[in-house]
Amino acid sequence: MGSQPIETLSEEEQRRQLNMEDATSQLERAQWVLNSPDPPGLLQELGSSVREIIFPRGKKRTSSTARQKQQSRAIEFLQGVFPILRWGRDYKASKFKNDLMAGLTLASLSIPQSIGYANLAKLDPQYGLYTSVIPPLIYAIMGSSREIAIGPVAVVSMLLSSMIAEIQDPLADPVAYRNFVFTVTLFAGTFQALFGLFRLGFLVDFLSHASIVGFMGGAAIVIGLQQLKGLLGISHFTTKTDVVSVLHSAFTSIDHPGRRNKKLFWFPAIAPLVSVILSTLIVFLTKADKHGVKIEAIAVGRSFASIKGYHIDGNKEMLAIGFMNIAGSLSSCYVATGSFSRTAVNFSAGCQTLVSNIVMSITVLVSLEVFTRLLYYTPTAILASIILSALPGLIDIRGAYYIWKVDKLDFIACIGAFFGVLFASVEIGLLAAVIISFARILLNAIRPGIEALGRLPRADVYCDMNQYPMAVKTPGILAVRINSALLCFANANFIRERILRWVTEEVNETKESTEGGIKAVILDMSNVMNIDTAGILALEELHKELLIHESQLAIANPKWQVIHKLRLAKFIDRIGSGWIFLTVSEAVDACVCSKLTAFANC
Amino acid sequence: MGSQPIETLSEEEQRRQLNMEDATSQLERAQWVLNSPDPPGLLQELGSSVREIIFPRGKKRTSSTARQKQQSRAIEFLQGVFPILRWGRDYKASKFKNDLMAGLTLASLSIPQSIGYANLAKLDPQYGLYTSVIPPLIYAIMGSSREIAIGPVAVVSMLLSSMIAEIQDPLADPVAYRNFVFTVTLFAGTFQALFGLFRLGFLVDFLSHASIVGFMGGAAIVIGLQQLKGLLGISHFTTKTDVVSVLHSAFTSIDHPGRRNKKLFWFPAIAPLVSVILSTLIVFLTKADKHGVKIEAIAVGRSFASIKGYHIDGNKEMLAIGFMNIAGSLSSCYVATGSFSRTAVNFSAGCQTLVSNIVMSITVLVSLEVFTRLLYYTPTAILASIILSALPGLIDIRGAYYIWKVDKLDFIACIGAFFGVLFASVEIGLLAAVIISFARILLNAIRPGIEALGRLPRADVYCDMNQYPMAVKTPGILAVRINSALLCFANANFIRERILRWVTEEVNETKESTEGGIKAVILDMSNVMNIDTAGILALEELHKELLIHESQLAIANPKWQVIHKLRLAKFIDRIGSGWIFLTVSEAVDACVCSKLTAFANC
Repeated sequence: MGSQPIETLSEEEQRRQLNMEDATSQLERAQWVLNSPDPPGLLQELGSSVREIIFPRGKKRTSSTARQKQQSRAIEFLQGVFPILRWGRDYKASKFKNDLMAGLTLASLSIPQSIGYANLAKLDPQYGLYTSVIPPLIYAIMGSSREIAIGPVAVVSMLLSSMIAEIQDPLADPVAYRNFVFTVTLFAGTFQALFGLFRLGFLVDFLSHASIVGFMGGAAIVIGLQQLKGLLGISHFTTKTDVVSVLHSAFTSIDHPGRRNKKLFWFPAIAPLVSVILSTLIVFLTKADKHGVKIEAIAVGRSFASIKGYHIDGNKEMLAIGFMNIAGSLSSCYVATGSFSRTAVNFSAGCQTLVSNIVMSITVLVSLEVFTRLLYYTPTAILASIILSALPGLIDIRGAYYIWKVDKLDFIACIGAFFGVLFASVEIGLLAAVIISFARILLNAIRPGIEALGRLPRADVYCDMNQYPMAVKTPGILAVRINSALLCFANANFIRERILRWVTEEVNETKESTEGGIKAVILDMSNVMNIDTAGILALEELHKELLIHESQLAIANPKWQVIHKLRLAKFIDRIGSGWIFLTVSEAVDACVCSKLTAFANC
Repeated sequence: MGSQPIETLSEEEQRRQLNMEDATSQLERAQWVLNSPDPPGLLQELGSSVREIIFPRGKKRTSSTARQKQQSRAIEFLQGVFPILRWGRDYKASKFKNDLMAGLTLASLSIPQSIGYANLAKLDPQYGLYTSVIPPLIYAIMGSSREIAIGPVAVVSMLLSSMIAEIQDPLADPVAYRNFVFTVTLFAGTFQALFGLFRLGFLVDFLSHASIVGFMGGAAIVIGLQQLKGLLGISHFTTKTDVVSVLHSAFTSIDHPGRRNKKLFWFPAIAPLVSVILSTLIVFLTKADKHGVKIEAIAVGRSFASIKGYHIDGNKEMLAIGFMNIAGSLSSCYVATGSFSRTAVNFSAGCQTLVSNIVMSITVLVSLEVFTRLLYYTPTAILASIILSALPGLIDIRGAYYIWKVDKLDFIACIGAFFGVLFASVEIGLLAAVIISFARILLNAIRPGIEALGRLPRADVYCDMNQYPMAVKTPGILAVRINSALLCFANANFIRERILRWVTEEVNETKESTEGGIKAVILDMSNVMNIDTAGILALEELHKELLIHESQLAIANPKWQVIHKLRLAKFIDRIGSGWIFLTVSEAVDACVCSKLTAFANC
């Protein structure tokens, strides 16, 4: 009983001590904010980011001498460039059994697809088969993915032919067209290799996932429609790739034979179509289980490697693919890349290493030697059906639905690419996708979101009042957070005006009540990574205009570049270094204190 | 002495109780994060932002009836459109004295400048004077700025002539050229009025302050060089505006009269030049005090209003300027706007209201009636010197130096605009400025900055280790903050790879020591305002890859849109809702706890 008052006393003392400690540490922390070291300059930053792109692993060169180390480093370098040197040493017969089976399965799929895709690329069938021989061999030596299946793919084949056919008609001069294709392949390979060498692989990311889904879907439909040529036995067909031209061409062609012989009209038009629909149906039904794998493959896609727990260096992959295309272009191959559908088949067939690609390559080579003569007589309707059977895997409806559900703006990019490919051309589809994606980034950066902050109950944390409805406002103080990474010419004035409007609205609302409106505006700048001169100007004007309304501007948590520039622009001298805080809650405490003292002075 | 153990006991109890409270409140707060209400959808957000742009003041329509209210609202509306109805009622004779003096001072500056700028616009002098009569009168009725001086300005005059002269040669058909100028003025006015009406004034902000400084400097130099024509008495001069063409034209023209009469070469070339240099010097020296005001005017610029403590609605201004140009185009005026230099003179001459503009307008009108005949005989050399004397105010070297000092990237936009105008053309200069400014925003949005966080001593705050060198890392835990407002296709993979690299490097470094590397990666997402499907995919892959390295992914402070999309994409189910936290410090505490229990289990 007697210890009670002593305890409360000591508690009070403790509290007072704590308060004093708080006050001093608050001052100390404000000093930390104000006296942070200078951030790296523009040139330094440029240099370091270039260095990071080119040497991402850092360069901890321990100069601890010895020829052995040098030798081991040379071996390491060689193993880096040719991963086969690493995994080849541990290669066992048990693995080969799996790889052989997977390779043969792959070949059985690769041969018809290569012929079909060569047809899509407006090349003779053997060039598609060549593309399934040389590039996989080169990739097996230089690549580091284990499951990927290399060869021609549908979308690239169509892209090639739709672009090149505009410059060089494949029917008028097949040799010149072919040479054009090989030249394009050489350039594509060179660019890929250079991108890999200079570690610019990240540029590939600039086509967003959503727009790829849309692009692939549109391309698949266009490819499918182009197969009408093969299906309907039409010889004069449009070289354009948009859906209107293709359909128009198809219907006029149907009309044309119809006029010549009205009774026999239906026979040539329908016979191959029916046979193809039937065969496609059979293919589809027998491959139903694999088809499941296929869809999954697209969803898992990039993370085949992560399933098996190893890491792939995108830039090294790029280099390997580049070299494989350079070598391919010199040996009558056109652009090859990893095929999603065949990779999924390879994976589910139990491949262990890239040896499955070597097996496939050799199998295709043998079939080339044996069947070349026969290939010329492959009916176009069958080629068309081969191509058609691969198309459903490209149309990722489930993926598109997922995008629609999660992110509506992403979905706009997706359908933009889809309709661009479908109704205009491949290039316009790609362009639409890139423009929509970047417009979205720009809009997000410009969009001047600001949110009012409130204190969460039983926590010293200030949060968005909309996201956390339980957050409580501090009367007389307006705490706002700027939700833009850059306070710049494009959004600074908008933000300034909106804050001012909130302040004046609050004043008008509270005119009837006894309160005196907003005494302090706390600007939480924790999201603002950088500021430009227009942003600083807007802050200065905001400060002046707030003074007219008799409220004080306080800044909480300015980031490195921001505090540095505010220091340079002497903005801090203007608002007073006492109004810069590390956290919103410290700023609120200080504002409440100064408000109380202001009242006391009155 | 006896109370000591009791006290410590109670303290310990208190601490335990606090810990328990902490734990429950931490759970509660995590629930707040997870169960936040759904953010507004895309359409809702679009709608509200459109509404905000068009009706920024909100629409608190109190339906409290009565015709009086309706009447007073009509009066308010009229006063809003014609502010003269408001300030005109309080107008006093004492104010008129000041306005009269300011207006006459303004007229003395306006008359020569209008003639000079009309020359710059390749129009006859009276059109410049008309532009100083009609638009100021309209603005005086509709505008709300008090100090602004309306009339033709140098840069707009040059812009007009350089653009229109490409389509219609002013020498070949002056009437057609003039009609073209008036048509352009009508369109400019209409656009300005529409922008004001639809509250699109913010679009004007899209030319950054820095690029305007550069553009104005470049334009001033080009205008100055074009005056060589007047100064050197050259009749055949280039209509191009880039510095190379202008200088080339000037030198060949000097060469040309020189060849005709070598002895008299220097006289025609030098005589006007010398006289102009002298007169410009005199003007400069006598206006030295005003010149000081002028420079200041550019720096203060937009905030004349804020000096006097009233607020200007940019959109209403836009509407007034638009109407004044529409009216101007119908009465033989070309594009008028507020002149910086004359506004500063008006301000320092002590103007009180827009009556000073009315006084100026009437004075110019009188001088037009009296002197029109004389105007035709104004020597071009004198016109040139009038124009030249206004140019130094456009070259804001101090502003450019300030931009250089504060923001190097802004300075690049500034010199981009400067050299664009100087060496290419006005349009290319503007385009360069806009492109550089937006490229900067894009780069900032894409630039995948991430920073390692450390705990500040004696505070529960986690901050950038670079900005706050005193921050301390928690061993075994990597806390990183993503410094981008959008985690999207363009930066998600880069961020994922960099985090993985940090983790693996840490593992390699700590292999020799007894510690077990990184046990948890805490992703502070407080800066990430939005995420797209590619960003979610990257997070999923990061989670999988971290599991391979036996470390756990935790997410701290996800924002409204982010947590909503992570919920939709079922990402939260995948990493477990127990790994979502409100703050970094709570995440760290939880990770440390789980690490300890993991050790205890071993």
